[in-house]
Amino acid sequence: MSQLSKILELDDLKSTQPAYLESIFSLANGHVGVRASNPINPSEDAGTIVNGFYEKSNIHYGEKAYGYAEKNQTIVKLPDIRRINIYDEDKNRFDRSQLKDMHLDMAQGILFSTYELSNSQNESIRLKLTSVTGQKRNQFIGLHYEIVGESYVGNIKIEKNFGLDTTIQDSDDPRKSRNINTLQYDVLNLKDLKSLRVTTDNSKLFVEMGLSVNKDIGMLKTLRNGSVKFDVVAVVGNINQHISSTDLPNFESIKNESTNFWTQFWNQSEIKINGDDSLDQAIHFNLYQLESSAGRDGKTNISAKGLSGVGYEGHYFWDTEMYMAPFFTFTNPDVAVNLIKYRYSILPEAKERARTLGVNDGALFAWRTINGKEASAYYPASTAQYHINADIAYAIYRYFKITKDKQLIRDCGLEIVLETAKFWSNFGSFSEINGKQQFCFFDVTGPDEYSAIVNNNYYTNRMAKFNLDFSIELIKRFPETAKQLGVNSDDLKKFTRIRDAIYLPFDEKKGINEQDDSYFRKPVWPFATTPKENYPLLLHYHPLTLYRYQVNKQADTLFADFLFDDISKKQLMKEYNYYEKITTHDSSLSRSIFSALAARLGLKDKAYSYFLDTAKTDLIDLQGNTKDGLHIANLGGSWVTIVEGFGGIQVKNNMLYIQNNLPKKWNGMTIRIKYNGSLLNIEYAQNNIHVEMLSGSPINMVINGIKSTIK
Amino acid sequence: MSQLSKILELDDLKSTQPAYLESIFSLANGHVGVRASNPINPSEDAGTIVNGFYEKSNIHYGEKAYGYAEKNQTIVKLPDIRRINIYDEDKNRFDRSQLKDMHLDMAQGILFSTYELSNSQNESIRLKLTSVTGQKRNQFIGLHYEIVGESYVGNIKIEKNFGLDTTIQDSDDPRKSRNINTLQYDVLNLKDLKSLRVTTDNSKLFVEMGLSVNKDIGMLKTLRNGSVKFDVVAVVGNINQHISSTDLPNFESIKNESTNFWTQFWNQSEIKINGDDSLDQAIHFNLYQLESSAGRDGKTNISAKGLSGVGYEGHYFWDTEMYMAPFFTFTNPDVAVNLIKYRYSILPEAKERARTLGVNDGALFAWRTINGKEASAYYPASTAQYHINADIAYAIYRYFKITKDKQLIRDCGLEIVLETAKFWSNFGSFSEINGKQQFCFFDVTGPDEYSAIVNNNYYTNRMAKFNLDFSIELIKRFPETAKQLGVNSDDLKKFTRIRDAIYLPFDEKKGINEQDDSYFRKPVWPFATTPKENYPLLLHYHPLTLYRYQVNKQADTLFADFLFDDISKKQLMKEYNYYEKITTHDSSLSRSIFSALAARLGLKDKAYSYFLDTAKTDLIDLQGNTKDGLHIANLGGSWVTIVEGFGGIQVKNNMLYIQNNLPKKWNGMTIRIKYNGSLLNIEYAQNNIHVEMLSGSPINMVINGIKSTIK
Repeated sequence: MSQLSKILELDDLKSTQPAYLESIFSLANGHVGVRASNPINPSEDAGTIVNGFYEKSNIHYGEKAYGYAEKNQTIVKLPDIRRINIYDEDKNRFDRSQLKDMHLDMAQGILFSTYELSNSQNESIRLKLTSVTGQKRNQFIGLHYEIVGESYVGNIKIEKNFGLDTTIQDSDDPRKSRNINTLQYDVLNLKDLKSLRVTTDNSKLFVEMGLSVNKDIGMLKTLRNGSVKFDVVAVVGNINQHISSTDLPNFESIKNESTNFWTQFWNQSEIKINGDDSLDQAIHFNLYQLESSAGRDGKTNISAKGLSGVGYEGHYFWDTEMYMAPFFTFTNPDVAVNLIKYRYSILPEAKERARTLGVNDGALFAWRTINGKEASAYYPASTAQYHINADIAYAIYRYFKITKDKQLIRDCGLEIVLETAKFWSNFGSFSEINGKQQFCFFDVTGPDEYSAIVNNNYYTNRMAKFNLDFSIELIKRFPETAKQLGVNSDDLKKFTRIRDAIYLPFDEKKGINEQDDSYFRKPVWPFATTPKENYPLLLHYHPLTLYRYQVNKQADTLFADFLFDDISKKQLMKEYNYYEKITTHDSSLSRSIFSALAARLGLKDKAYSYFLDTAKTDLIDLQGNTKDGLHIANLGGSWVTIVEGFGGIQVKNNMLYIQNNLPKKWNGMTIRIKYNGSLLNIEYAQNNIHVEMLSGSPINMVINGIKSTIK
Repeated sequence: MSQLSKILELDDLKSTQPAYLESIFSLANGHVGVRASNPINPSEDAGTIVNGFYEKSNIHYGEKAYGYAEKNQTIVKLPDIRRINIYDEDKNRFDRSQLKDMHLDMAQGILFSTYELSNSQNESIRLKLTSVTGQKRNQFIGLHYEIVGESYVGNIKIEKNFGLDTTIQDSDDPRKSRNINTLQYDVLNLKDLKSLRVTTDNSKLFVEMGLSVNKDIGMLKTLRNGSVKFDVVAVVGNINQHISSTDLPNFESIKNESTNFWTQFWNQSEIKINGDDSLDQAIHFNLYQLESSAGRDGKTNISAKGLSGVGYEGHYFWDTEMYMAPFFTFTNPDVAVNLIKYRYSILPEAKERARTLGVNDGALFAWRTINGKEASAYYPASTAQYHINADIAYAIYRYFKITKDKQLIRDCGLEIVLETAKFWSNFGSFSEINGKQQFCFFDVTGPDEYSAIVNNNYYTNRMAKFNLDFSIELIKRFPETAKQLGVNSDDLKKFTRIRDAIYLPFDEKKGINEQDDSYFRKPVWPFATTPKENYPLLLHYHPLTLYRYQVNKQADTLFADFLFDDISKKQLMKEYNYYEKITTHDSSLSRSIFSALAARLGLKDKAYSYFLDTAKTDLIDLQGNTKDGLHIANLGGSWVTIVEGFGGIQVKNNMLYIQNNLPKKWNGMTIRIKYNGSLLNIEYAQNNIHVEMLSGSPINMVINGIKSTIK
């Protein structure tokens, strides 16, 4: 496969704004993220991020009420480990810098950057920095510095330690992060390591950092037609675990580990697009950063910005289950398992949250969180999005259907599905609608955040129905586990009765599912008279203004259609056409679903056009805030579009379906997925699909409507 | 009439907690309020309040969005002018104090308080303080101090100035107020006055205060079997107007002014209950404090706590129009006019607010405000209560129907009614319901704050219908004024079409009006399993929990029934029975309406029982927070219950109705009201109504269903 499309260079990018480059070229391994800072003049956003290392602070409300989230959880930005000071013979710092080159080798996970530095005499030297993160021993980061004399001829002196003067700026923008003033920095006395313990006053966590620096780099080095090279190995410890200075790997071994890891990664996850090298590269970038972001220890998850920035405070959202998990489940199920295990680790907090919300049995997962407690200060677009419960159940369902792994169900899957199902059955209530007793959910918010506090949101109700249905299936298939969890026949009866009675709003006249109980009564947003500069609408209209119109921020009812594929093609086409007209795609989570659905509907041009708008979201800085971190859910969404949209991959009734929905502009496409333990290489051409089994047992599948067995 | 029932004494009260007494015995005149502090050891709540003198600060949101209220407006607590220091010969302060007596003469507006003071030698003196506020020249407050020797025999020294060491405590309770650290205190050099200017850093307002103190009170006074007496006149200036030391009235003239004022007040507003002296006294207290609270200058209004405390930050709410204005309109229309003029003064801000809420024509009044801008940080129970617009229009309607005063309509009434009508017509939209095009209002909150963000709240829609109807009436009756305001025939057509089409939710099966579009679909709150200590519910349940049940904090649909009396008695009885069962009365605004409606329905025992629960709200400290200030709306509500409930006073189709709904327990009741300029004395006995005209022209009315003319 092409390795060139796995190189990302400055030329490929929209901007060279330092903070933007820091996000784009950030390196990570699920545990630690290193923003690609200029080591001489880092931006104020530069720094190191440890997955799940957060500080708490009080949330301040203009008016507070019972059950509101109490504490902010804010990911900590740690000192920037790329930073270095270089001095000339006269002790003047080379304090001006110009980026000359930056490129990321995604085949090996190595970042190369080159800067021209100059001192106050305008004498220049060149600094090359090669960085790589340990992918197995994930506490280690390898840095290789090379300094070459240019117009400057003389000695240099090098200073390498933790710069502790960077701060995060306070901001009103909820997509950013807040300032933290409650960190303690303590210097540690570790052999061969310059080291530091960073402790949070309120969340009572700590992380230790170390820099293994050649002892003599602080000495004057001669730079006369020559160069100075040295390695630094940085250690960034796991939360609450002490680091030790023994058995440090060297730069080369970290690099080799990285190369091996990414080689295997691409072997399992490769996507190749024939006919558009730029898109080919973009999708590689997306998958590379997606993988880098995911916590792999069962205690951490994927934050909205991954480990590339501190935007959204490092919180985990439903993004994981609905936008990122599909990729991992189909290519790297071990990560998918750990993402589910993280949710299991916060099940006690979810049970407590359900009580706070007045529901006496079952669990309600926090809308945004790190430690399991709700951290969102605006409940209409957070706590009211009860659907996160079913989203998590859906991720378990997806995992189970694709991998057939029963162990996860026994270990924790059934328990999560059961607790969420219990929540729905106690949270909702029966009500007479159209002459029938139907089960309803009141005052909820669906995925579309331009509507809130509605009754019977279609997506929510459909997902709750699924959640109950899946719990019934698992209880029947895993009777022993169910028994251990205290499930009895009354529970099963109750779940069944409720599942069958859940109300799904449908508009007879329009012949389509209705977003909520009374959505179509509202007027349609006046799109014709809305100036272009008023998008995204949320920045220009009061929530009450948005809520009283039919206007969608993102796929809502259509998302349910996409997940369940349970309505006729004719109805789906009608629903698609209706909701598309009222959707602004002001959320980065929207277009990928519209694209995948369009592909499924055979609307090839539309599918392709949405895909183009979303595949390069960060590379072209579509939303103007990539500097705060990458839009990780969108990276996952682009995989969903390619594989589940263009590639027509679906698992239905325990059968793998492949449908060729290749965009007209492409010559072909190759994807790799794992199904039931077998690794498949699927090549799409305009009139052909070729499926090859790379490893594993034979699989029955349906390709373009025809049953086949691939051996 | 009995003057004894116009004396309120310590014995009449539930508690002698100092801050509670400060509220109960507070003195005010619509401009300045003086809490009845212990002058030796004032509580931390002691102080002086000037109507409308507020400071701004930023509202902090956990998550902020477009159009949110930007600034807190917080009433300022000014230095306590009752304070005094008294020293013995050895310069030791008499720093211990015991309240011996406090009584308020509501017939004259004079507060008497007596304290026993002692020094560290346990020698005691007695301090009597008489206070009175100027009711005409409302910047002046008269204080008369009398000190009598008891076990202490010797000289005393007196120190009288502004104590500047009291502060307000910060609190999360939205019913309290917040701390202000942005006040500047400057000493002024005014002749014969110890004076001070208090300036707010952010709202850029100032108030000046002066103390006219006998020059020689600082000297040593002999207290040997004798007493020392002296007067202090305090000046508390109007906002942004300088005070001057010339033409100071003396204590006696302030006292005479007060006596004259209250004599006239009682002459117009008297209510006498025969058969329950304690209730008779309570209602006097209510009316006394209500009158004291009301701004009379057209620039200020009545804050939720009046001038008796800084609770609710001194904000003006819909309480004014719906709970307090009825009293003023029927007894003291000059005050009612000024309350309306205040609303007119903030019409520009209301227009701006409508734009922020995405409505291009018309005005939306702020839910809570002093300066006209929205100051509420929780929009679901504030901005979404759009009904305040119609509440204000209703106050104008009530005023016009009772006084027949056309000038107010020409001056500002029509303009307010027009701008609010325009708001409704642009805010709502047509939608097909039950096969008809009906005009709807989406995502609104009615008076019941245990439901929020609902569609077609009955009260809101009914009030909007009224607002449009009244605008049509006024446009037709005042064509010249309407023309000046730019009204054309298209407007009239539009208003008429919308008025006739406004959707009013009605449940066919139950045969009653439905609180909103889908209210009866929700389950009824589990009252049977709710522990008593979980009331008020808002302190023990998340808003989302409250919202998803049928449970009312206060009268909502029933309030509309009360105002419009437009449904059959049979339906009203059904509605009353239904909503009563689901109402917690967790709001102090609830019981008065339930009581008045019950009286109208002939449910005499019920009416009386609700009245008993509410008439003494503050005197018995029903809600436990009277120390933060009196519940002024509730004071007004008790008048509504008596006059409009028990007294059966209504104005319908331009006719005054009187109906005898006297509680069984009372021998009789006398009320005074003004109608069309005539002052009426109405005496109710169990089987009789006697109406006497005290002044004015003959009036046709319907008494107990029989048409009469009173001359």
